[in-house]
Formats: sequence, C-alpha cells, structure tokens
Amino acid sequence: VPPVITLTTDFGWADPYVAAMKGVILSRLPGASVHDLSHEISPQDVFAGACFLAGAVPWFPPGTCHVAVVDPGVGTGRAPLAVRWRDQILVLPDNGLLTLLHRIEPVSAARRIEHPGCMLENMSATFHGRDVFAPAAAALAGGMPVASVGPVVEDFVLLPMPEPTSRPDGSVAGEIIHIDRFGNAVSNIPAALGPFRAAVVSGTRLPVLNAYADVPPGTPLTLEGSGGFLEIAVNQGSAADRFGLAAGSPMEALPD
Amino acid sequence: VPPVITLTTDFGWADPYVAAMKGVILSRLPGASVHDLSHEISPQDVFAGACFLAGAVPWFPPGTCHVAVVDPGVGTGRAPLAVRWRDQILVLPDNGLLTLLHRIEPVSAARRIEHPGCMLENMSATFHGRDVFAPAAAALAGGMPVASVGPVVEDFVLLPMPEPTSRPDGSVAGEIIHIDRFGNAVSNIPAALGPFRAAVVSGTRLPVLNAYADVPPGTPLTLEGSGGFLEIAVNQGSAADRFGLAAGSPMEALPD
Amino acid sequence: VPPVITLTTDFGWADPYVAAMKGVILSRLPGASVHDLSHEISPQDVFAGACFLAGAVPWFPPGTCHVAVVDPGVGTGRAPLAVRWRDQILVLPDNGLLTLLHRIEPVSAARRIEHPGCMLENMSATFHGRDVFAPAAAALAGGMPVASVGPVVEDFVLLPMPEPTSRPDGSVAGEIIHIDRFGNAVSNIPAALGPFRAAVVSGTRLPVLNAYADVPPGTPLTLEGSGGFLEIAVNQGSAADRFGLAAGSPMEALPD
Repeated sequence: VPPVITLTTDFGWADPYVAAMKGVILSRLPGASVHDLSHEISPQDVFAGACFLAGAVPWFPPGTCHVAVVDPGVGTGRAPLAVRWRDQILVLPDNGLLTLLHRIEPVSAARRIEHPGCMLENMSATFHGRDVFAPAAAALAGGMPVASVGPVVEDFVLLPMPEPTSRPDGSVAGEIIHIDRFGNAVSNIPAALGPFRAAVVSGTRLPVLNAYADVPPGTPLTLEGSGGFLEIAVNQGSAADRFGLAAGSPMEALPD
Repeated sequence: VPPVITLTTDFGWADPYVAAMKGVILSRLPGASVHDLSHEISPQDVFAGACFLAGAVPWFPPGTCHVAVVDPGVGTGRAPLAVRWRDQILVLPDNGLLTLLHRIEPVSAARRIEHPGCMLENMSATFHGRDVFAPAAAALAGGMPVASVGPVVEDFVLLPMPEPTSRPDGSVAGEIIHIDRFGNAVSNIPAALGPFRAAVVSGTRLPVLNAYADVPPGTPLTLEGSGGFLEIAVNQGSAADRFGLAAGSPMEALPD
Repeated sequence: VPPVITLTTDFGWADPYVAAMKGVILSRLPGASVHDLSHEISPQDVFAGACFLAGAVPWFPPGTCHVAVVDPGVGTGRAPLAVRWRDQILVLPDNGLLTLLHRIEPVSAARRIEHPGCMLENMSATFHGRDVFAPAAAALAGGMPVASVGPVVEDFVLLPMPEPTSRPDGSVAGEIIHIDRFGNAVSNIPAALGPFRAAVVSGTRLPVLNAYADVPPGTPLTLEGSGGFLEIAVNQGSAADRFGLAAGSPMEALPD
C-alpha cells in the first residue's frame, strides 16, 4: 500500500501553489497517494483550518501524513512543526492549527522541522508549503521518524477557544463557531452534554430533532451535527441566512 | 491495479465532509484509488446531480465504484442504494440521482444497503456520505457482491424529466436543462433527432454549426454539445447571459 | 511506480467535463496516478493558463505527463500538440499555453497529435479534453514515444509577453501580470534583475522586504514571490484592493 499524504490549505485552486506542492511530494516520494482535503479554507483563517482538521483527520488510517498550510506568518520566526496525533503525523506551521485536534486527544512528539532532508535547497520566504511542508511530508511518509526532523517543541501555539458554560438549571450557553456550505450553524456545545430538548438562537426556540428532514422544507430545527456538536439548521434552507447567524453568535441549549 | 472509487457530492470543499469520506474509504480499503468527480453539485439539487452522473459515469472503466451524495432526505426513511450500471457500481441515496443514467441504460441489481459491513458502527442521522456510502463503496470496491449488501429494491425513485416534443413539420420543442461554467445552455433535444439547421431561443434563430469557433468571438450559435444534446453557445461568451437562459427556458429546433 | 498524469483546465468542477477526462484516462491506462492541478483557470484565458503551467510544471518528476486544456479554438483547425519540456511531457492545444514554460527552457519535439491511438473513435467538435488530450496523455504516459503521435510542428503558437524595461539608472519598468487568491499582485520583473530597494505602484513607494509578516498586519510591502518575480503584497490583506491593481497595472522597481 503506497504512503498516504493529504493536503489542507487556504491556497484555492486558481494559483499554482497546490500544484507545486504535489510536484514536490511526487518528486521526493514517487508513488505516494496524495489526497486533497481542502484548498478552500478561508484565507489566513487559522481557526477555520483548526476546525477543519478536527473534522477530517480522525477518519484517516494509521500512518497517514497530513500537510496543513494556513500560514499568515510564513517567512518569520514561527516554527514549522511535525507532530504525532494518535498514529498519524501532521506537518504544519506552529500557529494554532492543531488546537482542536489537540483537544480531542493531545498531540505528542512535537518537533521543529530543521532536518535538511525536510526542505528544498533553495527556500523562499513566502511559500513554505512547497519549500518545507511538502518535502517534510514526503520524508516522513517515506519513513523518516518524527524524532529525526529536529528539536522538541514544548510549548507549541494553541488558540483560545470559546467555551460553553453549563448553568445550574441544566442549560448550556455557547456560541456558533462555523457556518457550513448548506448554511447550517455549528455551535461549540457538545450534544453529549445533553440530552437537550431545544436550542435558542436570535430569540427563537427550536426543537432538538434527529434529521434535517424531520421537519418540512423551510422549517428550522436543532440537531446533533456530524462532528458531535449541536447545530442550527433549516431543512433544505440556510439557518445562517434565516437567523442572521455567524461565527460568534450566541446560542443556548435547554435541558430535556 | 487498485480498485477505483469516485466521489460526486454537493458538499463543497470548505467543510471537512469530503475529507471524512476519503478517510473512511482509505481506512477500510487501503490502497484504493480515490478520484474527485465533483463536490460542486448545486446544494441539494438532485436533478443536477443526476445530469452530472450521466455525463461522467459512462466514461469510467469496468469495476469502478461511484459514490454520489446529494441527499436532502438524509436521516429519514429514504433507502441507501447500491446498483449496477453496465459493469460499474453506484452507491447513492434512493432519491432519483440515477434517473438519467437509467435512461441511457437501465440500472440493475438495485439493493438497499443494510449489511453491517457497509456502514460505520456509530451512525449519525446527518452524514450518511461518511457513515454509509463511503464504507459501502469500500466494501463493494473491495469485492463484496452487490447482491450481498441487502434486499432487492424494485421501485427505486426516478425523477420526472422534461421531454422534447417532435412535431409533424420535423421541428422539435424542448427546453434548456443545464447552464455550464462557460454559459453554454444545454437542452434536452438530442442532436440525433435531427439533422437540424437552426434553433430558436428567446425569439432569436441561431444556425446549427460544428464548433464554438466557427463564428467570430461574441457571436451566438447552436451546436451538438459533448453529451449529444443541442446547446446554445456564444463563441468566447455566455449564451445564458446573452439570451437570459436558465433551466426551463423553452427552445425549438428546426429541421434541415 | 504508476505513471503520473496531471490535469489543468478552465472547466470548473460543476460540469462533468473533468470527470469524463478522468474516466477516459483510467479506462485507457488502468492504475494511472491522476492529479488535479487546477480546474479554476479563468475561463478561456490562455495567458492565465500559461502562467499557471510555469508555476506548476517545473516541480514535477521526470516522466510526468501534463494535460492542459484552455481551448477557445476547440473544433477549429488549431492543432492538438504533444511536446517535451525537460524530461516531462505536455499535451495541450496549440494556442500559446506553453509560452511561459518555453521561456524558462525551450520545449522540444513538438508534434501534432494525429495517431488514432491518441483519440477516441467518435470525436466531438466541442470537447477535445475528453476526446483527444485525455487519450493522448494515457498513450504517452503508458509509453508511446512523443515522436509517434504525429508530424513535427515547427512554429507552434507563442503569446506576446509584456517585457520589463531596464533603465540606465538601474530602475526597471514593468507591469502586474497576475493577482493571486490572497490579493498579491505579481509583476513581470524578475527579482534577479536587482537587488531592488523599493517598488512604486499607483504613486506609492513600497520597500522590498523578505516576508509578508515583516510588516504589521495591513501594511503593504514588496517582496520576491515564490515564482522569482517581484510582487506587491499587504500583510494579511489584499494589495490588489488597496492599490487598485490588476493585470496590466504599471510598476517600477528602484535599485538598491
């Protein structure tokens, strides 16, 4: 089975940045199985990238090497990291991209990438995706131990996370952290804190149900999203548009 | 040769939904050759997904397993299906997604996916792409016979299709069913019903020619599109914008 | 190691055009390793495609076969080409798509694709990506020599390129040729013509620095982009928006 390398970036598809990364990987690890996870992370939105990785990485098999590049600090002193997460590897800038994965389960073996075998000979100051993270992924997926890439990093960056607050009456106050393509508004309230019977957003109380189509088209509801958090949805519509929701909008979950 | 699995969804790239499906497939069928066909089907537009599959699936080799997820009814009683089409396999919700393929050539061996080896142990009610269709594709591409996935489905859903009408004078009345990225307006009139010498849209008569560049830039024409249907185009321009065309716009083809 | 084929088109993802090309390739060369470089080249913008290829192709390993389709002249007399570039192969329409690669290093062995093994039996006049370029790539990646595909082409199309002008005082006058996803404005002035200490766009003088984050967020600068050309950027912002830049905007580089 060929080694699996995935790519998650904010590069979009219109520029040759993703292509150059693929070329570097295939040049250094011929036969690698390279998979696009996303190149549509909102530009330079590290928190969005961190949320994305938490929804994607846990589903991959042992040995997968994930490259994640949302990197507003490229070319400055921020470290390029290689870390282990469960039995997988991630290479990414040390800017908080691994925050949510680390909350699911702590990363281990964080190392600063310094090994010359993990970077191109001529490095630019503007494109470490191509010049560091792609060659590092090829080296690691090809068998280089994480411990070989460079010195231990003890205090990698973790982003502050909005935390839900449990109240004495069993209700939980949280907020929306992500709007998906369908307009579903995903909160930071784990469904496992419930059972809940309803959620309140923008002054409207919505029942907690099982599936989008448990209500007629155009009707709003709350349900447990695929990541395990409560989300506000409208069957075949956009909850974000209906209720004016965005990241940061407050939400309350009411106990069963 | 590794088994080929393709993915067609309306999930977009910004959320981790496609990535999670890839992770599940690669976890269950290491070495699978996974290919993105589209994740830009218009959200929850089952008919658009059905058109897409008819333009894509026929070109793939025997043994390919296609996953198609445009699934507004996820979590309700709609069945997850596995079907054979020619010598390929499709897994998809029973909501009409296979309508146009079935008109090219009938699907066979339709089964409701129930085998526990075709789904994750913990199934959500909101994301069967990850929890059912991805593991079912891995099982089928890995060798599970379609007949093993579950009971026969006799009466799978087929969507109503707008039909072209042939008139005694040899003309054919039809309609636009798809606008492509270039603004070409694809109709439901098979070029094989002709030969035609012209088409009429929005009161304008356009000659049937061979290639976009048979007319000067900016000039409209009619031609046989790559799917075998008449389409309205503007050389290096948008026919949809020029003539205000959308799905459902009437069109008439005039005999040679 | 399986043969590597890459795809660069202006087809977008919403229509089944890319999917059909993948199906044809996998049908004719089972086990091929197929990689998306971009399907978001601006529609019918051959110059944008040529810029993209120059940023992508040089990073791929020997033996890679690249398919590039930005093809407003499809179905007319323009030749379908196969060429060698370094130790890689490209198949593409003869319309200037290889202009920038050819300036990095001349292409060789340009041939007009005529061999029946390089095209489908039933060819459309509107979709040579599927009917010619995909089967030609499968044939070439599978071992057919470039010299076998058809007759030599001596005078393939090269697009006119805006050239930077070096002045006696050491300054260089050039122009913006590309705006990337982040709003960085890439010029046609090679950083190697310097050293430069500043650039001037829209009447504003900007220092040449090393990395985006060498200035505070929201601050503009000039730097050497990943392709080796001077670019105007705003740290965590859009230089194109800030200065009203687009392809063709004039820029001047001042010597150190």
